[in-house]
Amino acid sequence: MTYTIGLDYGSNSVRCVIVDTSNGNEVGTAVFNYPTGNAGIILDANDHNVARQNPTDYIEGLEVTIKDAIEEAKILPDEIVGIGVDTTGSTPLPIDKDGTPLGLLDEFKDNPNAMAWLWKDHTGYGEAAEITELAEKEHPEYLAKCGGTYSSEWFFSKILHCLRVDEKVFDAAFTWVEHADYMTALLTGTTNPKEIKRCRCAAGHKAMFNDSWGGYPDKAFLAKLAPKLGKLRDALGDETYAIDTVAGNLTKEWADKLGLKEGVPVAMGAFDAHLGAVGSGIKEGALVKIIGTSTCDMVAAPNKTKLADVPGICGIVDGSVLPGYFGLEAGQSAVGDIFNWFVNYIQTGGKETGDHIALTEKAEKLRPGQSGLLALDWNNGNRTVLVDQRLTGLLLGQTLHTRPEEIYRALIEATAFGALTIINRFEEYGIKIKEVINCGGIAEKNPMLMQIYADITGKEMKVSRSSQTCALGSAIAAAVVAGKAKGGYNNFADAQDAMTGVREITYKPIAENQKVYQQLYKLYKQLHDAFGTVGYGSPLYDVMKDLLSIKEKANA
Amino acid sequence: MTYTIGLDYGSNSVRCVIVDTSNGNEVGTAVFNYPTGNAGIILDANDHNVARQNPTDYIEGLEVTIKDAIEEAKILPDEIVGIGVDTTGSTPLPIDKDGTPLGLLDEFKDNPNAMAWLWKDHTGYGEAAEITELAEKEHPEYLAKCGGTYSSEWFFSKILHCLRVDEKVFDAAFTWVEHADYMTALLTGTTNPKEIKRCRCAAGHKAMFNDSWGGYPDKAFLAKLAPKLGKLRDALGDETYAIDTVAGNLTKEWADKLGLKEGVPVAMGAFDAHLGAVGSGIKEGALVKIIGTSTCDMVAAPNKTKLADVPGICGIVDGSVLPGYFGLEAGQSAVGDIFNWFVNYIQTGGKETGDHIALTEKAEKLRPGQSGLLALDWNNGNRTVLVDQRLTGLLLGQTLHTRPEEIYRALIEATAFGALTIINRFEEYGIKIKEVINCGGIAEKNPMLMQIYADITGKEMKVSRSSQTCALGSAIAAAVVAGKAKGGYNNFADAQDAMTGVREITYKPIAENQKVYQQLYKLYKQLHDAFGTVGYGSPLYDVMKDLLSIKEKANA
Repeated sequence: MTYTIGLDYGSNSVRCVIVDTSNGNEVGTAVFNYPTGNAGIILDANDHNVARQNPTDYIEGLEVTIKDAIEEAKILPDEIVGIGVDTTGSTPLPIDKDGTPLGLLDEFKDNPNAMAWLWKDHTGYGEAAEITELAEKEHPEYLAKCGGTYSSEWFFSKILHCLRVDEKVFDAAFTWVEHADYMTALLTGTTNPKEIKRCRCAAGHKAMFNDSWGGYPDKAFLAKLAPKLGKLRDALGDETYAIDTVAGNLTKEWADKLGLKEGVPVAMGAFDAHLGAVGSGIKEGALVKIIGTSTCDMVAAPNKTKLADVPGICGIVDGSVLPGYFGLEAGQSAVGDIFNWFVNYIQTGGKETGDHIALTEKAEKLRPGQSGLLALDWNNGNRTVLVDQRLTGLLLGQTLHTRPEEIYRALIEATAFGALTIINRFEEYGIKIKEVINCGGIAEKNPMLMQIYADITGKEMKVSRSSQTCALGSAIAAAVVAGKAKGGYNNFADAQDAMTGVREITYKPIAENQKVYQQLYKLYKQLHDAFGTVGYGSPLYDVMKDLLSIKEKANA
Repeated sequence: MTYTIGLDYGSNSVRCVIVDTSNGNEVGTAVFNYPTGNAGIILDANDHNVARQNPTDYIEGLEVTIKDAIEEAKILPDEIVGIGVDTTGSTPLPIDKDGTPLGLLDEFKDNPNAMAWLWKDHTGYGEAAEITELAEKEHPEYLAKCGGTYSSEWFFSKILHCLRVDEKVFDAAFTWVEHADYMTALLTGTTNPKEIKRCRCAAGHKAMFNDSWGGYPDKAFLAKLAPKLGKLRDALGDETYAIDTVAGNLTKEWADKLGLKEGVPVAMGAFDAHLGAVGSGIKEGALVKIIGTSTCDMVAAPNKTKLADVPGICGIVDGSVLPGYFGLEAGQSAVGDIFNWFVNYIQTGGKETGDHIALTEKAEKLRPGQSGLLALDWNNGNRTVLVDQRLTGLLLGQTLHTRPEEIYRALIEATAFGALTIINRFEEYGIKIKEVINCGGIAEKNPMLMQIYADITGKEMKVSRSSQTCALGSAIAAAVVAGKAKGGYNNFADAQDAMTGVREITYKPIAENQKVYQQLYKLYKQLHDAFGTVGYGSPLYDVMKDLLSIKEKANA
């Protein structure tokens, strides 16, 4: 028997699964909750935009979870033929000339700016706007491949913001690497920052990397944002690698620590959503939705067909999901987070009236349209298709008779309307979505939500067989770099065929619900366009932004 | 010593106060909670628009409270020189040819349509639209005096709706009278419906009564809405009476029942808000805000000056509040009701996070603008200045960090923005508001709310000395009909001077708060106009209405 290891670094914990390469079964699994900060995230009470992570947690989690998972799997270390890693992103961290994260150094160990800047850190929203503005003027092609707007969640926004607010950290960094690339460098003993292999998916989707303009953005372009950012360009290199590439081989040191064989191949890392799509069986015509606190929507389109740039989509990157395909990434900035917010803070009545179970039980008895409520799903901004962090939530239609379960359902419906808006955008640009494969706890556990998604999008909702598609995707990448001769596979198609699948239960659109939701979506779209786009013929576009400005002044 | 009785019929209970005519002190008080229905209101689980009351409760409450209040006051029945009554309204009830409410008859005692149609019954919204449409075409002057739109809360909307849904009840009624007029008829033994004196305030504000067109609307006009409604016109008579008029004298039967002297004068009744304004010391330049579950705003302008019709104001009626003055009535359909809704249903965390006290404690620590939230105060529609029941609530600006106290404060601010919109409307039409006198439990108990009202409206907020201004106003009317010779007064000015006052504590606008709120009000006004008015250049006006249509279909 042969197995691979899939490591999945999430926002609050890291998970390791040991996967049977013959059928994708998870034979061992272990989770490590990051000990630092608030559920693994370093926050700032005075600035809701801050979200950092301690790299120490990443390293500790590596050791603990691999050992525990192997023990649970009751297999021989020799049977493990490859390792794959996925992480959140864009989550860049500054490293010194020896490849050590600054956050591990005594000098910086208490400085949040020296830590990993978690994907949902939005402190660089001003810098994101600057980058967008400059690119619009000088390099519109940079933006065309990432949806037309550079986001505060992305690589250069964060690094530039660090330079602006903590130059000492910036200066101490030899370069910045994505969390995923740091992990593969660590496991393969790549301490020279110039030799660290950078993954295609992070570079292409979040750092404006594209072969058509020679890799990362032009040095002069970056220098215009800040001279020191221009200098950093040299430390980024010109190469990136897709997930069918070997990042390197496991060092003796780590092999000994983990009880594994020295030299086991480590696959190039990738973002959780990308490998989650692989683990869900992504292929042409399928949209994979990874539904969690936020949602990632992944699409793969053959790279032999000509593809239009799709405005508002987070990226179109050759080889970012599967070799031979353009990977397209879209997403919603908050999904589960919105439901959790409502349950944890707004309706705190508990078991009787206010937990997820109680609210779901009552909400599923409601018919579409019955509550008279309509919400926008922008409590954490809008990632796709508006690419605007400075948007906020909206709830409309409440009366004195409105009950919590109606609001709860309206919030779920809002996320489904957001999902439909993304699907429509893909289809408007010629990428037909034939099926939707969902994964994540919400998709597995909430049939009401899945049915609402089917009714609102008009697409059959399938659910991925694995509960850990990201980790499974990493294990699949590991199986491919191991190769068929070692018990793995020679390509992703074969590996996915054997190792992935969907569950028996699927959710088909119900015609009468669809009819009502089509009416509601028209209204959603009116609100969406009025508050989210300029030139709609009303001044409402400014309302959310003005409110945020007033709020920031009041908090200053 | 001389005393008068003030009876105040509210939405859930009736209150009786015994008032010292020399200084307005309340020496005895008693409350009777209506036993029928849900806190005195007959509801319909399938139709949120239904709100009826059982006239039996009115009669029982009369007897219980007067006796209890006299006992508490420890005074001699001989010392009582007058009785005054206020009620909610428009709250019409059908009566038969003997002056008996149909709801008291065996045949109809279980039929909600035969009961009193409480002010907040909105079942006649369709009929209200019909009446408005017909009046716009044929008698625009009818609408000009009641703000341009006839409301579903008013007299003819309800009667016409009854005719449409329960013709048997309509046919059994000789006529319909307002609750206030029924009470004075009962106490004075006026059983012939044609002799029942109708109060100016109800007729003028809610039933399109105006001397300039000969009283109630034209018979032909009503007949066009429904022939039987035209016939009803004859049973309404052509006279109405202001509160300085004696309705009649207490009958022997009721004097014996209540332990009072036969023949005590009973003043004409009026709506609670109107007599509340009197009890708050209304005069030229003062706006009286009666803040409760909803809010009434009352203004008195000398009837010698020419007054423009004020669009969106519920009525301009000569003598409806004070003799010699035009009474102007405006209001907000929900104020305390919105806060109660949030606390009773949405944030039910109780003492820790969710009751009024906990939320107020946290909310008062917030600075204006700090939450980034903005709400519309339309959870029960908009009475002034839009006069549109088919509007709903809106909350905007929420993020994943939004906390309940922020929403609570935003809801309070929304009602203050609504209050400012009303003040602005008065002032735009030449009625200068020099001071605001507030009354009601919320005004007395919530300094944070009063300060927010001062900061948002830019007006000093005073609070009425009496906690029971409506009942006090009734007692003042009673003192005026008693006359000076009997220990009362010859006019309202003298009676108000002696019997009303404001508290020492007042709330002055704080300049730095005002500055922020002026910015927020601009945004509120944008939402208000976009969702509440046609022709704003955006299709959003339809969103709330379309949602309600979808909701009604889903509930059908």
